[in-house]
Amino acid sequence: MKKLLFGVAYYDEYMPCDRLNEDVKMMKEAAVNVVRIAESTWSSVEPQNGVFDFKHIDRVIDVMEEAKISVIIGTPTYAIPTWLVKECPSVLAVTKKGQGIYGARQNMDITNPTYLFYAERIIRKIMERVSKRKCVIGFQLDNETKHYDTSGVNVQLSFIKYLRNKFPNINDLNDEFGLSYWSNRINSWEDFPNVLGTINGSLGAEFEKFQRTLVNKFLSWQADIVNEYKKENQFVTQNFDFEWRGYSFGVQPKVNHFEAAKCLTIAGVDIYHPTQDLLTGSEISFGGDMTRSLKSDNYLVLETQAQGFEDWLPYDGQLRLQAFSHIASGANSVMYWHWHSIHNSFETYWKGLLSHDFKENPTYNEAKIIGYEFNKFGDKLVSLQKKNDVAILVSNEALTAIEWFSMTLDFNYNDVVRWMYDELYKMNVGCDFINSDSCNIEKYKLIMVPALYCVPDNLLERLNTYVENGGNMVVTFKSAFTNENVKVSYNDQPNIINKCLGITYNQFTKPNNVYLKGHDFNVSIEDNKVSHWMELLKPTTAETIAYYDHPNWGGYSAITKNSYGTGTATYIGCFTSKAVLKEVLIGVLKDSNQFGQEQEYNFPIIIKSGYNLENKKVVYYFNYSAQKQTIKYMHNEGTELTKNKTIIKGEEVLLEPWNLIIVEENI
Amino acid sequence: MKKLLFGVAYYDEYMPCDRLNEDVKMMKEAAVNVVRIAESTWSSVEPQNGVFDFKHIDRVIDVMEEAKISVIIGTPTYAIPTWLVKECPSVLAVTKKGQGIYGARQNMDITNPTYLFYAERIIRKIMERVSKRKCVIGFQLDNETKHYDTSGVNVQLSFIKYLRNKFPNINDLNDEFGLSYWSNRINSWEDFPNVLGTINGSLGAEFEKFQRTLVNKFLSWQADIVNEYKKENQFVTQNFDFEWRGYSFGVQPKVNHFEAAKCLTIAGVDIYHPTQDLLTGSEISFGGDMTRSLKSDNYLVLETQAQGFEDWLPYDGQLRLQAFSHIASGANSVMYWHWHSIHNSFETYWKGLLSHDFKENPTYNEAKIIGYEFNKFGDKLVSLQKKNDVAILVSNEALTAIEWFSMTLDFNYNDVVRWMYDELYKMNVGCDFINSDSCNIEKYKLIMVPALYCVPDNLLERLNTYVENGGNMVVTFKSAFTNENVKVSYNDQPNIINKCLGITYNQFTKPNNVYLKGHDFNVSIEDNKVSHWMELLKPTTAETIAYYDHPNWGGYSAITKNSYGTGTATYIGCFTSKAVLKEVLIGVLKDSNQFGQEQEYNFPIIIKSGYNLENKKVVYYFNYSAQKQTIKYMHNEGTELTKNKTIIKGEEVLLEPWNLIIVEENI
Amino acid sequence: MKKLLFGVAYYDEYMPCDRLNEDVKMMKEAAVNVVRIAESTWSSVEPQNGVFDFKHIDRVIDVMEEAKISVIIGTPTYAIPTWLVKECPSVLAVTKKGQGIYGARQNMDITNPTYLFYAERIIRKIMERVSKRKCVIGFQLDNETKHYDTSGVNVQLSFIKYLRNKFPNINDLNDEFGLSYWSNRINSWEDFPNVLGTINGSLGAEFEKFQRTLVNKFLSWQADIVNEYKKENQFVTQNFDFEWRGYSFGVQPKVNHFEAAKCLTIAGVDIYHPTQDLLTGSEISFGGDMTRSLKSDNYLVLETQAQGFEDWLPYDGQLRLQAFSHIASGANSVMYWHWHSIHNSFETYWKGLLSHDFKENPTYNEAKIIGYEFNKFGDKLVSLQKKNDVAILVSNEALTAIEWFSMTLDFNYNDVVRWMYDELYKMNVGCDFINSDSCNIEKYKLIMVPALYCVPDNLLERLNTYVENGGNMVVTFKSAFTNENVKVSYNDQPNIINKCLGITYNQFTKPNNVYLKGHDFNVSIEDNKVSHWMELLKPTTAETIAYYDHPNWGGYSAITKNSYGTGTATYIGCFTSKAVLKEVLIGVLKDSNQFGQEQEYNFPIIIKSGYNLENKKVVYYFNYSAQKQTIKYMHNEGTELTKNKTIIKGEEVLLEPWNLIIVEENI
Repeated sequence: MKKLLFGVAYYDEYMPCDRLNEDVKMMKEAAVNVVRIAESTWSSVEPQNGVFDFKHIDRVIDVMEEAKISVIIGTPTYAIPTWLVKECPSVLAVTKKGQGIYGARQNMDITNPTYLFYAERIIRKIMERVSKRKCVIGFQLDNETKHYDTSGVNVQLSFIKYLRNKFPNINDLNDEFGLSYWSNRINSWEDFPNVLGTINGSLGAEFEKFQRTLVNKFLSWQADIVNEYKKENQFVTQNFDFEWRGYSFGVQPKVNHFEAAKCLTIAGVDIYHPTQDLLTGSEISFGGDMTRSLKSDNYLVLETQAQGFEDWLPYDGQLRLQAFSHIASGANSVMYWHWHSIHNSFETYWKGLLSHDFKENPTYNEAKIIGYEFNKFGDKLVSLQKKNDVAILVSNEALTAIEWFSMTLDFNYNDVVRWMYDELYKMNVGCDFINSDSCNIEKYKLIMVPALYCVPDNLLERLNTYVENGGNMVVTFKSAFTNENVKVSYNDQPNIINKCLGITYNQFTKPNNVYLKGHDFNVSIEDNKVSHWMELLKPTTAETIAYYDHPNWGGYSAITKNSYGTGTATYIGCFTSKAVLKEVLIGVLKDSNQFGQEQEYNFPIIIKSGYNLENKKVVYYFNYSAQKQTIKYMHNEGTELTKNKTIIKGEEVLLEPWNLIIVEENI
Repeated sequence: MKKLLFGVAYYDEYMPCDRLNEDVKMMKEAAVNVVRIAESTWSSVEPQNGVFDFKHIDRVIDVMEEAKISVIIGTPTYAIPTWLVKECPSVLAVTKKGQGIYGARQNMDITNPTYLFYAERIIRKIMERVSKRKCVIGFQLDNETKHYDTSGVNVQLSFIKYLRNKFPNINDLNDEFGLSYWSNRINSWEDFPNVLGTINGSLGAEFEKFQRTLVNKFLSWQADIVNEYKKENQFVTQNFDFEWRGYSFGVQPKVNHFEAAKCLTIAGVDIYHPTQDLLTGSEISFGGDMTRSLKSDNYLVLETQAQGFEDWLPYDGQLRLQAFSHIASGANSVMYWHWHSIHNSFETYWKGLLSHDFKENPTYNEAKIIGYEFNKFGDKLVSLQKKNDVAILVSNEALTAIEWFSMTLDFNYNDVVRWMYDELYKMNVGCDFINSDSCNIEKYKLIMVPALYCVPDNLLERLNTYVENGGNMVVTFKSAFTNENVKVSYNDQPNIINKCLGITYNQFTKPNNVYLKGHDFNVSIEDNKVSHWMELLKPTTAETIAYYDHPNWGGYSAITKNSYGTGTATYIGCFTSKAVLKEVLIGVLKDSNQFGQEQEYNFPIIIKSGYNLENKKVVYYFNYSAQKQTIKYMHNEGTELTKNKTIIKGEEVLLEPWNLIIVEENI
Repeated sequence: MKKLLFGVAYYDEYMPCDRLNEDVKMMKEAAVNVVRIAESTWSSVEPQNGVFDFKHIDRVIDVMEEAKISVIIGTPTYAIPTWLVKECPSVLAVTKKGQGIYGARQNMDITNPTYLFYAERIIRKIMERVSKRKCVIGFQLDNETKHYDTSGVNVQLSFIKYLRNKFPNINDLNDEFGLSYWSNRINSWEDFPNVLGTINGSLGAEFEKFQRTLVNKFLSWQADIVNEYKKENQFVTQNFDFEWRGYSFGVQPKVNHFEAAKCLTIAGVDIYHPTQDLLTGSEISFGGDMTRSLKSDNYLVLETQAQGFEDWLPYDGQLRLQAFSHIASGANSVMYWHWHSIHNSFETYWKGLLSHDFKENPTYNEAKIIGYEFNKFGDKLVSLQKKNDVAILVSNEALTAIEWFSMTLDFNYNDVVRWMYDELYKMNVGCDFINSDSCNIEKYKLIMVPALYCVPDNLLERLNTYVENGGNMVVTFKSAFTNENVKVSYNDQPNIINKCLGITYNQFTKPNNVYLKGHDFNVSIEDNKVSHWMELLKPTTAETIAYYDHPNWGGYSAITKNSYGTGTATYIGCFTSKAVLKEVLIGVLKDSNQFGQEQEYNFPIIIKSGYNLENKKVVYYFNYSAQKQTIKYMHNEGTELTKNKTIIKGEEVLLEPWNLIIVEENI
């Protein structure tokens, strides 16, 4: 991509009056150069079974084309029309709660052939209509696709066939999943019970893994249809989203993003996050690093908040700070959901760039500045290449398995992932994400392994080898505890990688009034406390970084570090405070030569960099606070782009609240 | 009505032994002059389909008649007999939870023809039996009637017909309700989906509005039957109840009381409230003002607590204080639920005047004092006429719509209503309630408009005119935001009345650490904080009473006041503390000449007044506290009725804890 | 029984590899002498309908027999195989939530004939196979049997027949249960409604009582089958469990243990409890006293925790302290659930003596010490006879009824029971439990009656006589309020026993800011507060121990004591602090000559005693704390068994943290 996309989702269908020309005028004033349309609007495009009406799509494309605004077409399949459900109620997914009821989006069974039949027809009809239009630059398949817990009879039958393929001998299934427990054995495939009632974590987690594969199949199927029509230079993307905690939080439980992204030409994402005093940039960075890693390439931010919802109305400067933060992570677009605020229905308070009155407002006015700047020097920022030496190894399977065994952990997998990610973010350590299928694990100097609860033996062997060959690794509690079938290892814990870690343990507990001792971290007493989980580590070859401070557990190690081959492996056996984690990570970064001048600055000063299309280094300094910050510019001489001024190494720079500088180095 | 009714609900059917004569003896000792019977007892009166047994009704009427105690007959239709459900299970309402199950009351579909057939028959049978009896003074239709969320196929079909009548062109429905959103369009009436699944707030709120009309129809239908039998001087009433928060709190979501009251000859109500240290009288006043306003007339308190439930056992004096508080609001009756405490089933701990042992107890003994006083000077208190210059405009539609959009407001409509009402109550400002259909809006000097979220344009125009012509108005945040179809206005906000208010806004947020500034209220820092909601007001012609105190929002107004025509319009753009609201209201009251000597006293001294049948002014001074209070009597010379002593203006009066004086002015 | 059993549950079926010989070796090292097998494993023993496979049972028995380890066989009926549910889905219980779904244990209808048919066949097959084996010492019927809320059509039909038998005249049912209320009358048996919807507490509680009888029938039926096969010296037991609050808390709501135990030769139980800093021994004592009381005999601890779950990993010394605590309460066994930690499924973190790695660990190593000591001097501890003069009267019916009327009490029956039990425990007062059918009530010197809410008249008369004849009794609030049909008495409260108590009341409330006054207890202000419930007591002949301290209720008594005949009856009319209760109990204990030297010590010093098979007194001193404790040995000269040393009266003894001494008196 050669220019930054700056845009909005636009719904002509939802307008209470004809706004199209006025809207385009206001878009042009904000230098908006792309709109996403058609997603969610099946019932407008096909008001009755087989009756098609392209008026909204046509007129928007016509006007945009004339205005030189690009268009991304979303297939409308994630929200189904009333006539479809009335004619064929079985398209609604059956879940633990029974069969769904019409109303919400994302309530269908994505494997239902009736749904697929009609979905295919509407996709083809739209593609026929739009794919040759000049302004159409790409396609978004469906939207925020997940499996929606679909688990009706048809899905369960497919699951049984899938299992039979995996375990031709049913006894292997029983043994591997431990189904003898509580008389759950399935001694004949015909006896397979309704999987929704299972209490067996291996079986339950396998079903969820199977459900994730349905998303891959569904998206590939859509991609194949779209590919029949699309022109070479048009992209195909998906709008991935994350574990939702009122905002984009962590690894998505219901999709394996790495797998699902394979059928796309470019990954896309939506990122929503707290703002006002709670704006940190960490979700923007997390979501960006994750999405960039899916295809090891730039990605599209297809949705992010404008005025958002409840208390997300941005302070002055925040919208712009956010926009450049996306670009600094490798995004090639910033697109708001959405242009105008909707006057009815459900997301009425999830506000767009414009409020319900369609007039100028401070948020829209700030978008105009962003558009101006994207236009002015976006060519120096677009398609930023990142070169990170640190990677975080994530796993949908670990996430799911820890949900199944959450009784032992009152917080979940993503709490551990974000605990680790956020400390790296705050120290300006750029990182990529990898998963168990990544082929490029070995290229990193430092790999972070949070709570990799279930994991196949071969990946653990590979990690041993990685460390042996000079890699550095930080592993947390609850890693390498079970195999890929959520069967706990009966070898020494942690399974296999106890070798590179130089520790083992066979007892653990939830800590009550347990602290750390024996380290030299400069942390408060409260920060010295451990919580949620602790493993009673016994080093074999490792040295102890911290012991537990407790009358009964004082002899056990809590954090250890081991030299193995030419690498090092650090183990954190308990959930510590952020302050302690930071100290541990500083040690590891220093040991692995990853602690540089950028780490001298910390959040709220955030530094990001990469290489632009001319292979020049571009460096961002962000001030994520309401206070002015003075920093010393530490990179090579270059041009500060927002002011178009030369800046030299060592120069003092004043960063205004919620503001930033961007430097393109001269060499 | 010429005398105060003092009474109880009486259930001969529930007695564990024959108590009738002994009970009547104890009632007479307490000067009880009315009992309400038959309500809830269908299964006793019609033990089998078509088999009738009037023994309990007959014997109670016989004995009451002889004892000169009046009787109110309740139709027994709100609790259905076992045989009816066994014969016709479909009489149980279908709701979001599926079809109901027998056991609780109020579980039937009030539109089901089988239910209506049997209900009509039992009503007619009872009316035939009792309507000509001398002691029977009136009839209560059903009890606490609501729509019970009935929404089975039959109800939804009626709803579709109702909608088709409202929107003959289905595209108007789609446009007005914004059904294009998330592909919810209904392009043909046959496609109408199960409304219980809808996520469309316009459609959902309309369905609830439709459900409320079912209550009106049901009660009118009962009234028509009862009217066929009743004598001229017998009244027809209903026992309305309120939004329930463990006690009677606010506007009832499931009934439009104004509409439902039209078929009655007198409105009735039940009012339950906290007591002991938490007794304030505000629920008595709120419920009374509301019920009096329904027909702009006196009303019946058909149920209130005796010993009540859990921690409602009254302190000495409280029962009497409460009784006169009802009368001071315009009630013509005080009736306890109920005479005796029930020995089995469900409301065993919702205790009556008598405990389970049927013996005298302090609560019953206090009732004897009340009865004695009602008897002695009740003729001077009965049928009190209230003349209020202040009215509060309430709306079931706003309540429902705010429930649909509660994601933006973690408290609901009634929190705003009560926030406003309670401050007026505490300042001794008498008020009426009006609704959007009230024809008498213009007679008030001051109208309060809490959170009138959805409202038709013509009412807003009318409010503009009202202010222009000299009226005064206080409007809060979240008013005039949508039209009657819960479609957000795309005009300047607040829709239409921005004209009289002299402000507009197009951004809002949930406030975090936002305070007020720029006013001269004498309030604490904590009381200066705003919460839950804030709109960023920009005055056009209004003056600013308070600005937001916040780094980013400091330029916006929070509370404004505008002169418009010969009236004034005040806008409160955020949820403030009670203390700030009080200061704002004092200003408005002073400006509109509503701030008099009675406002010099505040809660716990509560002053109420009205005009009796001789058109003499009657004034109550209540002490709602456990402390003695000395006040200066400020009204005209008259007779203090409880002591039957002359009292003169300026006289110092000592009010004992939880006590009162009542003065009939001489002139 | 002549020797202590020390053992584990053992599941060869769940093993991820062949561990049998290695496990037996490790068991022998820990002096384990019994394993419990086969429970839960139906799907392994009968992999298909009518196909049997005894390999796991056979091989375990073979190896255990050779190792001289005894075996208890559990019938496998509490967890049903997949094929059974696939063939006959109706075996799953129908409850309020609808029909169950396969997966969890304890989900079947224990009255379903299909289930009973297959259950009988598998029991007979197993009994044929194992009952003559030398090492098999007894049988456990099912496991933690309860009624699982089964309430399908068949169960409800049985219930109607049961009710018709109890009330041949349906009007008696209506009168006794108060069904006229809310039109719930059942005027013909055919009209009987679905009992799951009832709001009538009498009907609802009766149904739960009926459901408890199903457990008795089911266990008797199993016992009859097992008895056909068992040898004379083999025992039959059940593994009872308690109200579960994350650990064993109180009286089991879903089984009447006294009734259910009648078909057993010895009672069995599982006891789980907090540990680490929260270990108090009170659950061990409570569960032990209860289970010993069922048959007035020794009992088996069939399950207790090893490493347990979440934060139950024991500190050094705790496992041993717990083991001897069980024995000191009269247990003849300590058996861990379970030997090894399970590698899959659901209870993966409910860890056994061995962790998942099967290696030695501190918990297993402590078990070795226990096994060694049981072996060395267990013959002096086994079959301990307890002679208590204090009993607590408990009632399933009161528990259920208080659940139905919990709106008046935000804590339940067991909170009152444990409040009372725990204070006795902490004062080293040994006690038994009795129920309303106990024939030995009169043998106790002091009877505690917590919240005996519903109770037949004849038991109350019996208690009057008991006190009259010199018995001492402590009764709490909410006792004798209703009869056995949960019909509130209309006599003076408390019903009938107001005679021996010398008090009455007819008003009560939930207390807000109410304290006690008029007593001479040395307690803090906070401890003087009452909560949850208070009755306004009026003494007739009783003296007042404490009054309420409150402006309105200050004239009422809160705690009273009455002399009646030659006994005394104390009434506690409110929920007090533990400190106040302790003071009251000390007074009662002193008055009834139950306050001896053992009461001079308090928790964490716990003293237990009994008589061994040689009729010598055995005394335990436990230190339930992390601090060393010095005590003065107060019993007769004897041998301290753990050190095998003579100890004399008055000798100072140092108790290490979480440690104990055991003395067998010489005479």
